[in-house]
Amino acid sequence: MKNILIIGAGKSSSSLIQYLLNKSEAENLFLTIADISTENALKLINNHKNASAITLDVFNEKEREQEILKNDIVISMLPARFHTEVAKDCVKLEKHMVTASYISEEMKLLDKAVKEKGLIFMNEIGLDPGLDHMSAMQVLDRIRDKNAKMLLFESFCGGLVAPESDNNLWNYKFTWNPRNVVLAGQGGAAMFIQEGTYKYIPYHKLFRRTEFLNIAGSGQFEAYANRDSLKYRNVYGLNNIPTMYRGTIRKMGFSRAWNIFIQLGMTDDSYTIEDSENMSYRDFVNLFLAYSPSDSVELKLRSYLKIDQDDLMWAKLVELDLFNPKKKIGLTNATPAKILQKILEDSWTLQEEDKDMIVMQHLFGYELNGEKRQIESSLVVEGENQTYTAMAKTVGLPVAIAALKILKGEITTPGVQLPITKEVYEPILKELENYGIIFKDKEVPYLGYNPNNVVG
Amino acid sequence: MKNILIIGAGKSSSSLIQYLLNKSEAENLFLTIADISTENALKLINNHKNASAITLDVFNEKEREQEILKNDIVISMLPARFHTEVAKDCVKLEKHMVTASYISEEMKLLDKAVKEKGLIFMNEIGLDPGLDHMSAMQVLDRIRDKNAKMLLFESFCGGLVAPESDNNLWNYKFTWNPRNVVLAGQGGAAMFIQEGTYKYIPYHKLFRRTEFLNIAGSGQFEAYANRDSLKYRNVYGLNNIPTMYRGTIRKMGFSRAWNIFIQLGMTDDSYTIEDSENMSYRDFVNLFLAYSPSDSVELKLRSYLKIDQDDLMWAKLVELDLFNPKKKIGLTNATPAKILQKILEDSWTLQEEDKDMIVMQHLFGYELNGEKRQIESSLVVEGENQTYTAMAKTVGLPVAIAALKILKGEITTPGVQLPITKEVYEPILKELENYGIIFKDKEVPYLGYNPNNVVG
Repeated sequence: MKNILIIGAGKSSSSLIQYLLNKSEAENLFLTIADISTENALKLINNHKNASAITLDVFNEKEREQEILKNDIVISMLPARFHTEVAKDCVKLEKHMVTASYISEEMKLLDKAVKEKGLIFMNEIGLDPGLDHMSAMQVLDRIRDKNAKMLLFESFCGGLVAPESDNNLWNYKFTWNPRNVVLAGQGGAAMFIQEGTYKYIPYHKLFRRTEFLNIAGSGQFEAYANRDSLKYRNVYGLNNIPTMYRGTIRKMGFSRAWNIFIQLGMTDDSYTIEDSENMSYRDFVNLFLAYSPSDSVELKLRSYLKIDQDDLMWAKLVELDLFNPKKKIGLTNATPAKILQKILEDSWTLQEEDKDMIVMQHLFGYELNGEKRQIESSLVVEGENQTYTAMAKTVGLPVAIAALKILKGEITTPGVQLPITKEVYEPILKELENYGIIFKDKEVPYLGYNPNNVVG
Repeated sequence: MKNILIIGAGKSSSSLIQYLLNKSEAENLFLTIADISTENALKLINNHKNASAITLDVFNEKEREQEILKNDIVISMLPARFHTEVAKDCVKLEKHMVTASYISEEMKLLDKAVKEKGLIFMNEIGLDPGLDHMSAMQVLDRIRDKNAKMLLFESFCGGLVAPESDNNLWNYKFTWNPRNVVLAGQGGAAMFIQEGTYKYIPYHKLFRRTEFLNIAGSGQFEAYANRDSLKYRNVYGLNNIPTMYRGTIRKMGFSRAWNIFIQLGMTDDSYTIEDSENMSYRDFVNLFLAYSPSDSVELKLRSYLKIDQDDLMWAKLVELDLFNPKKKIGLTNATPAKILQKILEDSWTLQEEDKDMIVMQHLFGYELNGEKRQIESSLVVEGENQTYTAMAKTVGLPVAIAALKILKGEITTPGVQLPITKEVYEPILKELENYGIIFKDKEVPYLGYNPNNVVG
């Protein structure tokens, strides 16, 4: 019997656990699901005989080591900053490890020890990062195998609400950590390269410089640039590519309206508001507008940000009940970002019957035999319900499949790694197709940013 | 003979040294001016028999202690972060100390030891902080002595170019550290209170939310809000005041044009630009604009930021030669902020014959016997030349006067302090009048932000 320790039984663990439980008979698996409370784990296990739920304080060194020792592989679904201690134990106790998080500097430092002990530490194998790496590398390797020259790589991903549950003016609900949505884009300028020219967008302009994309069957979307697209040139072996861009997908019109919050200063998480608890939503908005003894909060905001009264952006703000003088914030000494999150959660929380949707698209531009071509590769996944969401599927299934393949000796290269080699991405992408995670590739005309070589 | 050690012989030390040298015969003073090089110190001393210049590495503990030991008081004109070590020596060796810098947390911690040894550590006694504290407290104390109720305190200060040297479209030249000008306003939202309502302005809107002020004889100015006006409520004993605002003065129209650099992202100091050395000024601007195979950098910028072609802002940009495709940046791996500073220094560096100007204004609103009143207190100081600038006078003279008064036993209260007590500000402000640093007070009608109690 192979023993798997899963640390963290949050939102993203449902499909992961379901997959492994379904395989547990045939593959002879036993799962231990450890979290600070067993409540969610017990629900997900649903009395399956090949699994147990335990409470674990991941900061308790002794407890942690004891549990890891009993297992053959550890899947850490904790927030990224908590992986390090688990990873060090895995090196010491000679266990494989899988995470869906970006490889941290601390994780990188373990590479030598991990290799020496013949272990596999697979990281960045969720959705984004994860599925994006695998699907991109699969097409990139195919193109490069033909000795073509890469001209352009653009990659977009977004967690959205499914069309049948899309019933607000923003065409958006929180399908993942709301805090990350509120803080998205902060912490430095976005950087990418287009036709050989570096481009930098400061945070306060990020949502005004969107790109558009079309996904067959799902319509048009917009995307704002991710923080650092440049570092992926190296990861994907595209060091001299003239166009490299990564972005986050939203429904059309979202970003222009979101920009209002940024312009006002409502996404700031660096200071707290005095007496925020007893403030109304309207008072909160007024903190960011000039004092006036007579003008309304509404008119001050419209005038300040030059919003026409019939602009759809305005209706979006009104829909959030942002100008309500009676609704209290009820959060003590909160930052503007925390208060904004609270206000948005009133409107954007997924309801029991709501479904989410994951959308991903890659564009690959290349030159083969003097001819410029482009491949468009798209993925749309809808969630089943509030437990088996599209997010949980696309994050959890690659993790689960990778873990099982490591246990079964089908992935063999040791080291701290991400899933960019054929050995890893080919079988995983193949198996994901059984679960409806299928990329649709098509040849499209090459466009780039200057298809006709226009000069002036 | 009283011995004074002055550490730092930079721009702000000229008037300070001149004042003390002029007093040295009558007051029996000897100055030792210590810096990493003696060049500037020797120039400032000009063979005066009561002074010597020495080289001192302030990080060399032994050297530093030896010099401090020989003196009765230490004036540190170093950047604020270097004061701590000097201050600790002064406690140990029982010497008084004077600085023009904000009291740091480390400095505050020395208060008990300083008091126990009967020493005086006077800080924040330059221009801003310094002259602003003293002149504000003088009027505030007078108003409060009448048992009036404070309604409003606004304080503005700016270092500008004198009218006779004001010959560019920005009406601005660097009269102080250019780096601080480029980074001004960064690091958090500006906060203040108006008519009892807190107001927060994010950095990217700071230069679009200016206040106007008028200084008799000098015309109209604008001001952008300083970082944290709220903390001064406590320092000045104005905890319940409904309006409290501190701002930085510029000539009219400066801020709206400066906002262009912020909107583009050119003031960002958090990342470096690849191959910045060989980039032209024009290439630099283009980094912040969308890629286009055909449109010009000029038109892209105007369209992006919606600048009319006959807007004076546009002429300001052109005056800086920002679109020159031949001028190279010449700085290796520089941040946007460093590159912008370089470009501005081409145009805004004070010339040999240029003079600077310091402008300060306080507004005090109060209620006395049921009547609302307002006092406007203004200061304008022009520099004599490039050595004895208005900045050097207004920073250095208060420091010098305070040091001498401490030595002569005219300031006696021990502790780590700033100049907000009558004992300190009254004699210093009186003496500063001999040097042309004279505040003009006048009664004006009380305005506040809602003089007519308008409601809707």
